[in-house]
Amino acid sequence: MPAFPYQKVTIIGPGLIGGSLGMAILSRRLAKEVVGVGRNPKSLAVAESAGAVTSTSTDLATGVAEADLIVICTPVDSIVDQVLAVVSHIANSSKPVLITDAGSTKAEIVSRLDQHQAISTWPANVRFIGSHPIAGNEKRGAEHGSPDLFEGRVAVVTPTEATAANDLEQIKQFWLALGATVVSLSAVEHDIAMASVSHLPHLLASAIASQTPERYVSLSGTGWQDTTRIAAGDAALWRQILLANRTNVLASLDRFEQQLAEFRAALEAGEPKRLEQLLTEAKRIRDTL
Amino acid sequence: MPAFPYQKVTIIGPGLIGGSLGMAILSRRLAKEVVGVGRNPKSLAVAESAGAVTSTSTDLATGVAEADLIVICTPVDSIVDQVLAVVSHIANSSKPVLITDAGSTKAEIVSRLDQHQAISTWPANVRFIGSHPIAGNEKRGAEHGSPDLFEGRVAVVTPTEATAANDLEQIKQFWLALGATVVSLSAVEHDIAMASVSHLPHLLASAIASQTPERYVSLSGTGWQDTTRIAAGDAALWRQILLANRTNVLASLDRFEQQLAEFRAALEAGEPKRLEQLLTEAKRIRDTL
Repeated sequence: MPAFPYQKVTIIGPGLIGGSLGMAILSRRLAKEVVGVGRNPKSLAVAESAGAVTSTSTDLATGVAEADLIVICTPVDSIVDQVLAVVSHIANSSKPVLITDAGSTKAEIVSRLDQHQAISTWPANVRFIGSHPIAGNEKRGAEHGSPDLFEGRVAVVTPTEATAANDLEQIKQFWLALGATVVSLSAVEHDIAMASVSHLPHLLASAIASQTPERYVSLSGTGWQDTTRIAAGDAALWRQILLANRTNVLASLDRFEQQLAEFRAALEAGEPKRLEQLLTEAKRIRDTL
Repeated sequence: MPAFPYQKVTIIGPGLIGGSLGMAILSRRLAKEVVGVGRNPKSLAVAESAGAVTSTSTDLATGVAEADLIVICTPVDSIVDQVLAVVSHIANSSKPVLITDAGSTKAEIVSRLDQHQAISTWPANVRFIGSHPIAGNEKRGAEHGSPDLFEGRVAVVTPTEATAANDLEQIKQFWLALGATVVSLSAVEHDIAMASVSHLPHLLASAIASQTPERYVSLSGTGWQDTTRIAAGDAALWRQILLANRTNVLASLDRFEQQLAEFRAALEAGEPKRLEQLLTEAKRIRDTL
């Protein structure tokens, strides 16, 4: 890869993920310039002083002008609108621009944007491909970001039938350059998988925390602490994710409740063999990691 | 505390917890001699080469002779029998001996041993007080031990009406010297608390792992990995713990399922406000940590 494969990357929403993305891009010299765009000047200042971006703007038109790559890192509910707003500002340029996102759900976002891209008024120079870097933690803000957040993590890209092969290759190379392993999935399969390995576990971590009598929290060990860690995540962000992937999360919840009913039955009947079998099977799946 | 408050401490079962205990005792110079007793010569050799004990024995009588403090670190189902076996070997000595354990459940162990101690044939020089250092991880064996395993952790001690004040003080000082914070609870309350903050979370971590389609495990992030970490624990050990605390675990499971039903209802009805409230309340409890 040549030095500075990108002249200017714009990150809409340079928080924990967007900020880490900026740090990763700059530390790997993938772009000369990384512009952070957001509504809150304070968060933008934090991102700039954390070394996540080289400049900031609260004005979307200014922020995206002349960008080669634009990454939308806002909460999932606003991603489609953000992409459309970006497109309205760069439609008059002839420069090729790739837009991607970092949203934890994909099906609805990708299908809606695919419909928009199929319309003749969509500018020919602009392409959207969905991404989801599976990285992050329960914290918020670029001050908690890290240039190595994507190192060794999986980044899912979700091309559609409309995606051009060279655009797909470009976005894959982008995540690879940040240290991630790239997996290409349909947006629908991505959401089914995430319901099982991320969204349902989040909901269950929250329910585990909720059932805990507060006076016993101080007696918790690393077991409770790890099991409930993600329940400390931002409630508004996770509400959006869970609702955006509602059908799949409910299907995973059904599967979980079937498993739980087996554990309950073994415990109620006091069946050591059955209980140990269930624990052993769970350990086997955990150990495939 | 004077140098070497103990001459000889014997650890029955020097695995992850017992081995860490030996390392902690030796590194803090709490005893001159730490003897590891077990049935498996290989595990004993591992404990010795890991620096967890100064000598080992597969013979219980030899291992406990002349010990000042004996800590039973075997699985919960065998603790009462181990204590009784130890007592039969030291009954003819007049030296005061304190026995404690490191079991994750307490009510049945403590009540059974209290009954034994009330009988006139129980030797006057021997006292048992239950302990539970809330520390450990999903690994096994002294080779994964650490002299700092108890540092900053809670150690619960579970005295009964029969416990002498100076014995209780001695066992508290022991755990304090290892860096733990000591909490004194009745064995019954200990088990109620542990059902919520340890045993039920273990069962749920296992059920989360079990519901995960294996092909999606490679797409998991730190959320799934932390939530299911304890499911990698030893199935036979956890089967014993869950069954020993069955009634309390089932009561905690009822409470969890009530919470989960609320999350499900909010998700099924697509109620953003209600879902965010539930997530916020869970976050509040997690954040009390």
